[in-house]
Amino acid sequence: MTWQDVTTIRERAPLVLNITNYVVMNTTANALLALGASPVMAHAIEEVEEMVGLAQALVINIGTLSSPWIAAMVAAGKEAGRRGIPVVLDPVGAGATRFRTDTALRLIAEARPTIIRGNASEIRSLVRSGAATKGVDSTYGTDEVADEARALARSAGCVVSVSGAVDLIVDADRVSRVANGDPIMTRVTGMGCTASALTGAFAAVNPSPRDAAEHAMAVMGVAGELAAARADGPGSFQMHFLDALHRLTRDEIARRARVTA
Amino acid sequence: MTWQDVTTIRERAPLVLNITNYVVMNTTANALLALGASPVMAHAIEEVEEMVGLAQALVINIGTLSSPWIAAMVAAGKEAGRRGIPVVLDPVGAGATRFRTDTALRLIAEARPTIIRGNASEIRSLVRSGAATKGVDSTYGTDEVADEARALARSAGCVVSVSGAVDLIVDADRVSRVANGDPIMTRVTGMGCTASALTGAFAAVNPSPRDAAEHAMAVMGVAGELAAARADGPGSFQMHFLDALHRLTRDEIARRARVTA
Amino acid sequence: MTWQDVTTIRERAPLVLNITNYVVMNTTANALLALGASPVMAHAIEEVEEMVGLAQALVINIGTLSSPWIAAMVAAGKEAGRRGIPVVLDPVGAGATRFRTDTALRLIAEARPTIIRGNASEIRSLVRSGAATKGVDSTYGTDEVADEARALARSAGCVVSVSGAVDLIVDADRVSRVANGDPIMTRVTGMGCTASALTGAFAAVNPSPRDAAEHAMAVMGVAGELAAARADGPGSFQMHFLDALHRLTRDEIARRARVTA
Repeated sequence: MTWQDVTTIRERAPLVLNITNYVVMNTTANALLALGASPVMAHAIEEVEEMVGLAQALVINIGTLSSPWIAAMVAAGKEAGRRGIPVVLDPVGAGATRFRTDTALRLIAEARPTIIRGNASEIRSLVRSGAATKGVDSTYGTDEVADEARALARSAGCVVSVSGAVDLIVDADRVSRVANGDPIMTRVTGMGCTASALTGAFAAVNPSPRDAAEHAMAVMGVAGELAAARADGPGSFQMHFLDALHRLTRDEIARRARVTA
Repeated sequence: MTWQDVTTIRERAPLVLNITNYVVMNTTANALLALGASPVMAHAIEEVEEMVGLAQALVINIGTLSSPWIAAMVAAGKEAGRRGIPVVLDPVGAGATRFRTDTALRLIAEARPTIIRGNASEIRSLVRSGAATKGVDSTYGTDEVADEARALARSAGCVVSVSGAVDLIVDADRVSRVANGDPIMTRVTGMGCTASALTGAFAAVNPSPRDAAEHAMAVMGVAGELAAARADGPGSFQMHFLDALHRLTRDEIARRARVTA
Repeated sequence: MTWQDVTTIRERAPLVLNITNYVVMNTTANALLALGASPVMAHAIEEVEEMVGLAQALVINIGTLSSPWIAAMVAAGKEAGRRGIPVVLDPVGAGATRFRTDTALRLIAEARPTIIRGNASEIRSLVRSGAATKGVDSTYGTDEVADEARALARSAGCVVSVSGAVDLIVDADRVSRVANGDPIMTRVTGMGCTASALTGAFAAVNPSPRDAAEHAMAVMGVAGELAAARADGPGSFQMHFLDALHRLTRDEIARRARVTA
C-alpha cells in the first residue's frame, strides 16, 4: 500500500544517498525531506563507499555527467550491491549523446540497478542503441515503450519505471500503469529526477522494487495534481508540490491514485 | 516583434544547451522551460560537441569557472560556429579576477559569441583591461558603458547586451535601450544569468542577434515587473517571475515593453 | 546589537565569498542577497586568493566535497588569514565519513576559521574522533554538546556556533543560547548552510566573532519563525523565509529574538 510506505518513510526517515546532477540537487533534496526521508549528496570517490554504508538506498543520476563522477557512481553501486541496499538509476539524456548512453549501459552492467527510472526516449535508447532523443525530453508516448521496457527489465534483471502522461512500471512479467500527474510538471526542471529520488526513498522501506516504483510514481502524480490545482504557473507549482508532499494524507492518495495492473 | 518570437519559442521549444554555473543551473533551466524552450545542461568534454549538434543555441556562462569547464566551453563554442548556431556568452565576474577576465577574452576569441550579455562592470573590464569590478555586481550605470560596449561589439564582431536599470543593446552601429524591470531583481541571484539563457532561446528562433537580445531583455523586464507587482520580497518574486514568464501575453508585452532605438 | 548589524549589512553590502556545496549555492546566495549582502561563489584554485582580496568574509562549506575543492578551500583560508578577514567553516557531514572529518580537521588547522558553525553531531565528531553521525542530520540535542563545543573553541581558537532547537554560541569562556526558529526548518535542505552564510555576512561587519555568530543565529531564527507562521509546508516556507529576511525590521527582532547569556 502506498500510504503504508509513506508513513514508514516519515517514521524511519531513511537515508537516501544521491549521486546526482547539479541542476536538481537542491530540488531532489527538498523533495526527499518533504516526503520525510533524509537526503545526502556526495560524489567523492574517497567517501562514496563509506557513505553507502550509512544509507538505506542509493540513487544514481547521470544528468550532468563527467568522468570523475562515473567512477564514484560505479564504486557506490558496487558497494550497494555488496550491502544489499537498493539502487535506482536515472539515465538522464541517454540516447542524446554516445557518452550518456554508454555510461548508462556501463552503470547497468556494473552498478546493477534495482530500478531504472527514465522517460520513454531514455529507456528506448538503452534497448535500441542508436535511437536519438531530443535532449532530455521524452519525444514519444510511454505506451509505445512497454515492449522495450520489458526487454530492458529482463536483460538488466530489474524493474523499469517509465515516466510519462501515464507511467509504466515494468518487470520481466508484468506492466502496471499510474495515470496521475499534470502537464505543468513538464514545465519544471527535474521532475523526473525527483521521481527517481522518491523512488529511492520508497525502495528504502519496501522490499519489493516493483511496489516501491509504483508507489513513488503514484505519490509524485498525486502531489503533482494537488499542486497543479493551486498553481498559477511552474513557479508556484514547485512551491505547492513540496507543500503537498509534506502534507500528503491517506485520504488524498486513496481518492486520487489511479494505479492499474 | 517580441511577441512573435515568444510564440515561436512556445511552438518549437528550441533546445538551448547551457554550459553554465552551479548557482543558477536550476534557475535558468526553469526560466527556459517557463518561456517554452527546452534546456539541457552538459559540460563534459566527451559530449559537448555532440550535444551542440542537437541544440538550436549555446549559452556559455563563466560564473563558477574551473579549468575542465573552460576546455568544454571552447570546444562547444567552436562546434557551434561550425554548425552556425548562435552562441551567447555571459562573462560573469569578468574584471573581478584575472582568471575570469582572461577566460572571457579567450572565449570571445575562440568560441566567437554571437551575443555577449553582461553587466556594465563586466563589459567594461573586457574593453579596459585592469578595470576592477566588485564581485559579480555592476558598480556603475549602463549609460556610461555605451562606448565601451560599442568598442567590444566592433572588436568581437558581435552584439553586446548590457543589463542594468536600463539595458543597452549595442552593435557596431546602433544602441537601443530597454527600460523595463524592477529593483527587486538585483536582490535575486542569477537574474543576469537568466537573461543570458533567455537570450539564447530568442537567438534560437530569431536570425537577428540584435533583435533576439532586445526581445529577451524586454521579456525579462516585463516578466520582472509583473512579478514584482505581486511579490512581498525576493522569495515570492522568484515564484511569480516563473509564473509570469509562463503566462506572458501579447497584451502584457504590448502595454509594458519600453524599447527605444 | 543584532539590528545594528542588519542595517550595516544593508548599507555596506559586504562581499561574502562562498566556497560551498552544490546543493545550497543558489539558496545561500539568495539568503545573502535577501539580507543585504553581496554573495560571490568561486572555487577555482586559479582565482580564489584573488577573490578573497575583494571579499569582507569567507565561508567554507564541505557539503559536496572533492579533492580539487579542498585545495581551493585551504588556499582561500590562508589568504583570508593573511588579510585578516573572518573565515566561517561549516563542517557539513563531519563524522559521517572519514574523508569529511579529516578534511574538516585539516581546514581547522590550515584555514584557521574564526567561527565554526555546525550541528551537534558535526561538532562532536571534530572533538571525539570516531563518533558517528547519521549523514548530515543532527542526532542529539545541542545542550549535550556544550562541553565538546567549548573544547573545540579552545583547541581551534575560535567561536563555535552549534545549531539546533536551541543554538549554542560558544567560545573558550562562555556559552550563550539562541532559542528561535521552527521545526519546519529541519524539512528544508541547506538551512544550516544558510546559517553559516549569514554568519559570514555578520562577521564581515561586526569585529566580534561571538556577536556575529549570535546575531546571525537570531536573524535565522526570527526569519524562520516569521516564515513558518505564513507557510503551508517546506515549499512555501522557503519563499517566506527569503521575504522575511528581506523585510526584517528592528521591531520584529526586538520582540522575537530570544538570546540568553
